[in-house]
Amino acid sequence: MPDAATAMRVVELAGGVGGAKLAHGLQAHLGERLSVIVNTGDDLERHGLLVCPDHDTVMYTLAGIDNREWGWGLAGETFAASEMLARYGEETWFRLGDRDLATHIVRTRRLREGERLTTVSLKLQAALGVRAAILPMADEPVRTRVRTDEGWLDFQTYFVGRHQEPEVHEVRFDGIEAARATPEVLSALAGADAIVVAPSNPFVSVAPILAVAGIRDALDAARARGVPVAAISGIVGGRAIKGPADRMFASLGGEAPSALAVARRYAGWVDLFVLDDVDAALEPGVRDLGVDTVVTDTLMVDDASRARLAGEVLGALAARCRPAVSRDGAGEA
Amino acid sequence: MPDAATAMRVVELAGGVGGAKLAHGLQAHLGERLSVIVNTGDDLERHGLLVCPDHDTVMYTLAGIDNREWGWGLAGETFAASEMLARYGEETWFRLGDRDLATHIVRTRRLREGERLTTVSLKLQAALGVRAAILPMADEPVRTRVRTDEGWLDFQTYFVGRHQEPEVHEVRFDGIEAARATPEVLSALAGADAIVVAPSNPFVSVAPILAVAGIRDALDAARARGVPVAAISGIVGGRAIKGPADRMFASLGGEAPSALAVARRYAGWVDLFVLDDVDAALEPGVRDLGVDTVVTDTLMVDDASRARLAGEVLGALAARCRPAVSRDGAGEA
Repeated sequence: MPDAATAMRVVELAGGVGGAKLAHGLQAHLGERLSVIVNTGDDLERHGLLVCPDHDTVMYTLAGIDNREWGWGLAGETFAASEMLARYGEETWFRLGDRDLATHIVRTRRLREGERLTTVSLKLQAALGVRAAILPMADEPVRTRVRTDEGWLDFQTYFVGRHQEPEVHEVRFDGIEAARATPEVLSALAGADAIVVAPSNPFVSVAPILAVAGIRDALDAARARGVPVAAISGIVGGRAIKGPADRMFASLGGEAPSALAVARRYAGWVDLFVLDDVDAALEPGVRDLGVDTVVTDTLMVDDASRARLAGEVLGALAARCRPAVSRDGAGEA
Repeated sequence: MPDAATAMRVVELAGGVGGAKLAHGLQAHLGERLSVIVNTGDDLERHGLLVCPDHDTVMYTLAGIDNREWGWGLAGETFAASEMLARYGEETWFRLGDRDLATHIVRTRRLREGERLTTVSLKLQAALGVRAAILPMADEPVRTRVRTDEGWLDFQTYFVGRHQEPEVHEVRFDGIEAARATPEVLSALAGADAIVVAPSNPFVSVAPILAVAGIRDALDAARARGVPVAAISGIVGGRAIKGPADRMFASLGGEAPSALAVARRYAGWVDLFVLDDVDAALEPGVRDLGVDTVVTDTLMVDDASRARLAGEVLGALAARCRPAVSRDGAGEA
């Protein structure tokens, strides 16, 4: 990877697990030069506490304390409080570990004391030694809801409570009208040398971020400055790596799930699209959309593969960067 | 013990550990005929959650899930959340276990939703299978503060944070002017056949209960009906069984700590005073105050000794009960 790549300031748009893995790879190269704008549409209140699943997944992963075995939550997590909550008659289908609860307790207290979600989040990250900045897409609450055969459901009721079983026919982001890009998000985008869209769900992870007033404009402004945008397909071999994105392509997008279908959704504001080797045959179709391509192994199964994919994406972005990187990259690399 | 004793409806005034042990003994005889009015002056906010140490000590003890080994908290308790709270920079000198945290989380949420502390508390107790009713002395917040050589301290800062080291020169109950006896407290006192004052700290456990508007009047009204009141000395052999009550007799009461000094504080509204065998020599002094006496082994080291002491107190009270017990006791015993 060229030195210029590690000298870039990069903004990643991310949902949960896929976004966290890519962020982990990017942080290995960039350290504090990485900012991750995370979806908050998945947030929910449990037991009177604000839970931010996407933020916390990225935070725990970047702090190196995520539970690799389970693929969610914290390493060495226990559930003593949850068992007691159940004894008190609380619904515990959204299972919160003891260590994880501490995060929600501290966040909720600080928000009640009047701090912004962004400020609270940055302090939590700093306490855990996270080098990148993880920025909630907005300080105002946004709540994703999905219309299913069972009616409108809160996102986590659908995702965790109903195990993504019901078909999703419509998605809405409650509160999105009042949500505004934060100063931190705008500053990160204004200072970005490159932007990366994680292999997250286009419908319920990336779409809410883009729907926040000010974010799409800031992305367009960055591109107008020559800042390249890369996106990585979360659909590999026609299947979602994780979650219901593949089924949503059919029920929401009206087409079969594929890397090409992902590229089609992002065409117009993405310059570079990263497909997995197994989808190499789709590359010409993506190029026909006017989007450049990188074909590589996109599965992030361990630290090494996370860092390798991130490095490859950064290298491809650096090769496209014009004034932004040459401005300060050479001296600092 | 006479049958009449177990048919009585009894109200106990209680602080934490001593009150909990006696309540446990009383509950063994009385089941749901026991109501415990607990001090709330020790309550505090930690991490944005309302913690009620006296209530919870009594509740966990009556539910049989208290930690006998430590003398506080829950059996099998763990501290994973607390370690994480510390990592976030939270003060954790008031150590909250994972199971215990669940209690505070549920209580805080329900209070925020507008429920009264009494209602919330009764539901928590019911969920844990407590048979007696544990009634907070008031729904309004009361916070005990103590003036020490280090200035005014919140009670738990003094008690836990400073390990009761500083001398206490003055006690005040912030919020007491606004506190009112709850309907549940008034109903329990109105229906009581006998009243028991636990071997709790007279200055910081019993005094705040008596200071709540309406409680002293209800006690007087009960006594006027012929309802006997017994108190058990928490000072044995000149020493407090637990806590700083002995030192407070010197610094606040202006006299040496002794069972007689306790009796002196309660004389006028207590009919029967229970002294430990080691203090038998003080019995004449207590009788000189116009208070009857029971001299027995008052140490509650296990279930059997708790039940035995409670039974002895109940027996002595039943012997003094006039119309109240004969009214409904015979048929139900």
